[in-house]
Amino acid sequence: MALIVQKYGGTSVGSVERIQHVADKVLDYRRQGHDVVVVVSAMSGETDRLLGLARDINARPEGRELDVLLSTGEQVTIALLAMALEGRGCPARSYTGAQVHILTDSAHNKARIRDIDGARVRRDLADGRVVVVAGFQGVDEHGNITTLGRGGSDTTAVALAAALKADECQIYTDVDGVYTTDPRVAANARRLERITFEEMLEMASLGSKVLQIRAVEFAGKYNVPLRVLSSFQEGPGTLITFEEDGMEQALISGIAFNQNEAQVTILGVPDQPGVAWRILGPISDANIEVDMIVQNVGADGTTDFTFTVHRNDYDKALAILQGLPEKLHARQISGDPKIVKISLVGVGMRSHAGIASKMFEALAGEGINIRMISTSEIKISVVVDEKYLELGVRALHDAFELESPQQGR
Amino acid sequence: MALIVQKYGGTSVGSVERIQHVADKVLDYRRQGHDVVVVVSAMSGETDRLLGLARDINARPEGRELDVLLSTGEQVTIALLAMALEGRGCPARSYTGAQVHILTDSAHNKARIRDIDGARVRRDLADGRVVVVAGFQGVDEHGNITTLGRGGSDTTAVALAAALKADECQIYTDVDGVYTTDPRVAANARRLERITFEEMLEMASLGSKVLQIRAVEFAGKYNVPLRVLSSFQEGPGTLITFEEDGMEQALISGIAFNQNEAQVTILGVPDQPGVAWRILGPISDANIEVDMIVQNVGADGTTDFTFTVHRNDYDKALAILQGLPEKLHARQISGDPKIVKISLVGVGMRSHAGIASKMFEALAGEGINIRMISTSEIKISVVVDEKYLELGVRALHDAFELESPQQGR
Repeated sequence: MALIVQKYGGTSVGSVERIQHVADKVLDYRRQGHDVVVVVSAMSGETDRLLGLARDINARPEGRELDVLLSTGEQVTIALLAMALEGRGCPARSYTGAQVHILTDSAHNKARIRDIDGARVRRDLADGRVVVVAGFQGVDEHGNITTLGRGGSDTTAVALAAALKADECQIYTDVDGVYTTDPRVAANARRLERITFEEMLEMASLGSKVLQIRAVEFAGKYNVPLRVLSSFQEGPGTLITFEEDGMEQALISGIAFNQNEAQVTILGVPDQPGVAWRILGPISDANIEVDMIVQNVGADGTTDFTFTVHRNDYDKALAILQGLPEKLHARQISGDPKIVKISLVGVGMRSHAGIASKMFEALAGEGINIRMISTSEIKISVVVDEKYLELGVRALHDAFELESPQQGR
Repeated sequence: MALIVQKYGGTSVGSVERIQHVADKVLDYRRQGHDVVVVVSAMSGETDRLLGLARDINARPEGRELDVLLSTGEQVTIALLAMALEGRGCPARSYTGAQVHILTDSAHNKARIRDIDGARVRRDLADGRVVVVAGFQGVDEHGNITTLGRGGSDTTAVALAAALKADECQIYTDVDGVYTTDPRVAANARRLERITFEEMLEMASLGSKVLQIRAVEFAGKYNVPLRVLSSFQEGPGTLITFEEDGMEQALISGIAFNQNEAQVTILGVPDQPGVAWRILGPISDANIEVDMIVQNVGADGTTDFTFTVHRNDYDKALAILQGLPEKLHARQISGDPKIVKISLVGVGMRSHAGIASKMFEALAGEGINIRMISTSEIKISVVVDEKYLELGVRALHDAFELESPQQGR
């Protein structure tokens, strides 16, 4: 007998039939004796329909009113799911974000959760009800409806699980778990039984878009065991938890990659204090997000500086640098929009030497030239020509034997 | 400079274009220096769409969850209208029923308003905003979403107008006012400049379905001047107020009729205490609403008893009476589903004799046989064969010269 918070996304509740299916799944857990709180998104397509209406009315709708509008999407789903459960003889009760006091800041369209009052939910659970909560939405201290931004239902589920001290937070999606890499790139990619929060954060931010990063951060912060499962097929999914003592930890959990980056390079700038700021200040002022930053130690009093940005921002970033007074006294400003980043992620690498060299060896074996390298505690990222993406991912997947659960121990 | 509460129904906000049109109308009033609070319904068709979803999920959805679902309809409209106003540079803010504390009882799907806290609305008006409120919905003392039942947006508007002590409550609809009778029946029917609350109640309950009865009762109770106007054409509409001292009052305001009634007659029941209760008790226990009731003084210790019910309930009512033990000792139980009720309504008749006889004379002149007569302070109703409906209404409209504003003074 456990308390489980489940979250079903838009595709999982995309039609009357699928909502009935979700009700069946919830009922299964109830029959096993568990208490269940369900968080749902808007039915797929609904948010876009509402956004379309808004755009037809006002090209730049105010954030507050957009939230009033969009929050109806989840409200429809909670009512329908509660009805489906009641129709199965299972007492259920639906709540909007405001009704269970999901208190957020006032940043409309991208609000952050501050606090949740779990009292009402706990009372319903004690009364034997399934509680259905609208994801993605909350209320600010003035009673205004807020939304957490797209995909925010994951965060709602995790925050509720934390507030209720749930035993597990299950995120149902259209994939059956987290994979060692994208199966479309490496056919022998394997579903992970478990992965740590840190690894998941590195995987997610690097492009394996299974879960919202904020939800994973939240889960890690409040130590909520998180499980990613498919709502369309049976299976245990992937459990995301903290590293356990004595747990035999895989060396490498997976290979993430990002195809949306572009590289900007400044060669031969004077190697003086403040150079990084002079370069990146104007970039950040233009609201361009920078991902990797690599600065090489240079010769003869100058240094080389390279960073990556989203491809959409490449031209803008280049223009900004070339428009700077004296062009930073750089010898050359150049770049390449056709690069990819490939990253090896695994908490196991912390305690194992030689991972980096094995990685570079595998890439070299395929004749892949590495342009940039950046490392963190549990991640090694390289930037290579975009044409090497598939080849590089597969070479690394094979080299670290990720197709086998016994890899690298 | 006045405070005006306006209510726009589903047809008036049925599309993006119509919402833009409503925004233009609101802005007109703002430009004239008025403070405006707008109450809106769900876009036409939306409530039916949501009901369809609910029915596909659960043939008998719980009232609480139905209210969570249906209340999204108005919530979409308030956001869109606020966006349309903001798009015109007019500061606006939308509120759900819960957000402005439209406190109701807990009778889901047919809740009644208990209290409204106007403080938040007043603050916004003082800040120069137009306030847009979702009609038809409220919140009970436990924070559950409630709805007032179909058409309840009129009641929301009137209740808000009362709470805010508004100067006028304007109900925009698809007709341009209240008419002396249905123009489809009498082509010379005339729009009334004004009508009293009492007359309006008699007109509405008798079949001139312009306004929700509850809204009129509410407006009368709190003395809120109510105006019915068209949202599609310009014009002053019809003002519904209390009878004013010294106001030259028309003798007759209008002729209402009801084609949905059926007559049930019990002949020759023993004329004893309790006979009415023995007849109507079982009818009311079966949730059948009774409209007119007429009991004649009978001869030889028996009496005759006739009442009318909705035609849909006719067979059921007849079966109940015939199924009663000893059939009430009645000589005969019979009925006729093909009757209509025609009513003459006017506060002026209170102080004028001879209205009834003039009415009966006009009907007799057309050879129309009267089956039942029932009178109140400001109304005389007759039941006739349904084939006489048009003939009877036109004869009365002509006899009382209702086509002319100077009638009967």
